[in-house]
Amino acid sequence: MSQVDQISTLSRASLEAVSPAVVREAIRSGRWQGNTKRLALGRHQANVTIVPERYAFDFMRFCFRNPRALPILDVTDPGDPCPRRVAPGADIRTDIGQYVIIRDGVAVDRVRSIESVWRSDHVAFLTGCNLSMDRVMLEAGMPLPHLIDEQAFPAQFRSSIPCVPAGVFQGPVVVSMRPVPNHLVVPLVELTSKYGLSHGGPIHIGDPSAIGIADLSAVDWGRPNKIGPDQTPMFWACGITAQAAAQMSKIPEIIVHAPGHMFVTDMVVRESTGLVSA
Amino acid sequence: MSQVDQISTLSRASLEAVSPAVVREAIRSGRWQGNTKRLALGRHQANVTIVPERYAFDFMRFCFRNPRALPILDVTDPGDPCPRRVAPGADIRTDIGQYVIIRDGVAVDRVRSIESVWRSDHVAFLTGCNLSMDRVMLEAGMPLPHLIDEQAFPAQFRSSIPCVPAGVFQGPVVVSMRPVPNHLVVPLVELTSKYGLSHGGPIHIGDPSAIGIADLSAVDWGRPNKIGPDQTPMFWACGITAQAAAQMSKIPEIIVHAPGHMFVTDMVVRESTGLVSA
Repeated sequence: MSQVDQISTLSRASLEAVSPAVVREAIRSGRWQGNTKRLALGRHQANVTIVPERYAFDFMRFCFRNPRALPILDVTDPGDPCPRRVAPGADIRTDIGQYVIIRDGVAVDRVRSIESVWRSDHVAFLTGCNLSMDRVMLEAGMPLPHLIDEQAFPAQFRSSIPCVPAGVFQGPVVVSMRPVPNHLVVPLVELTSKYGLSHGGPIHIGDPSAIGIADLSAVDWGRPNKIGPDQTPMFWACGITAQAAAQMSKIPEIIVHAPGHMFVTDMVVRESTGLVSA
Repeated sequence: MSQVDQISTLSRASLEAVSPAVVREAIRSGRWQGNTKRLALGRHQANVTIVPERYAFDFMRFCFRNPRALPILDVTDPGDPCPRRVAPGADIRTDIGQYVIIRDGVAVDRVRSIESVWRSDHVAFLTGCNLSMDRVMLEAGMPLPHLIDEQAFPAQFRSSIPCVPAGVFQGPVVVSMRPVPNHLVVPLVELTSKYGLSHGGPIHIGDPSAIGIADLSAVDWGRPNKIGPDQTPMFWACGITAQAAAQMSKIPEIIVHAPGHMFVTDMVVRESTGLVSA
């Protein structure tokens, strides 16, 4: 893999209250090279999965059938690099900090732009992300270590819960885990259940082994989070489910955002009905 | 067009409180040949649009981009006649009362089964239907003439509101109109807005000419509904939008349910979040 610089000329705090377009410009120009935690707080951040058109209908059914893990925010036309529904004017080829190129199920490169590899049959899927819930959780009084500690990140695991397959795509539901103070468990279920486009309510509460996780310190992505006294582990479906399925499918090519380097959309995070209104 | 018998050996009332599987069996066996008003009241009824696989990704994007008109309830795998998400065990080829076969944009046949024309590349899309709201509206005290009068049906019109296009698909948003007692206008907005999978809130209230409808008595589908004194016309997006777009696209083949002859799913109508839970 090629090395990617991690030197930013802007502070994270300076990008927290600005518009999503300003964040995307900072990323595109290289002035921001870190992850997207807290950036344009309150807007939907998106997982991005780019597949050749011949796999696009399979992948769209896969997302539709696994809506907690992969709530669809936008789907581009083949060859069109602009996610017109959630970020008119943006360019999916340049507006993400780091991309991972996966061929035949193996990550082969990590790059700062995909302009040179973009083709007329590429289709980009944007799906909901748990980082979108940060503002809502903060307002609910939920301590979020990953927002305070620059090195911290939600812990993510392959669970034993299978996705509903579609065409060539199948695999486990990947989950993110947050240690939640016991008195916030019920309020957080009630709260997050209203945000279907950011994975909705948790898919499991409590014993990790019930969903196939033997050891909370052995994360598959992210960083381990300790469960303190008077805390309960809560698990939400996670957008990395797409990458796990794409890797298992071993399709010739798939391009994804690097973990933590999400696409920042214009879409305001709000309680969502069945209607996906941008 | 071939003639289709309208002789049923069951009464409508006898099919109102039974399970969706019983309704589908009655339709499949020919013992019920009428429309699906009131049948399995409280379950989602679905518009059905069957397209060849090569148009399926275009059509799924078209539905996703026009969620008020075409909220997706289920999408089958190519060649699989079972809508496994919303009606496991059902057969989309036999469980609808009447089908319309459209070739190159022209309706060429109306049939009681599509078993003989079903192919391995056929994909069925099931989208939300305003008839699904009947129970909810009845409970809210909304008079529904089409439920009481056997001949009545919601009036449906092509509006001047354009759909967001996707691939070969484009066209107007088709709307259904209900005359609503003035004191129920606000309550009905509040109520229907919670049911995103049945078209959500109205897309227009009042003056029909504002959305390109010159004459409420000149319906494009359904039957005219008179606006009484102290009533306001309310317009909801309608699933017939799919048929209008498919006819405009002039794709070689598309199969749809005949108006009023919906597919009756197992899915209970309830307030819906962004998660499409069957």
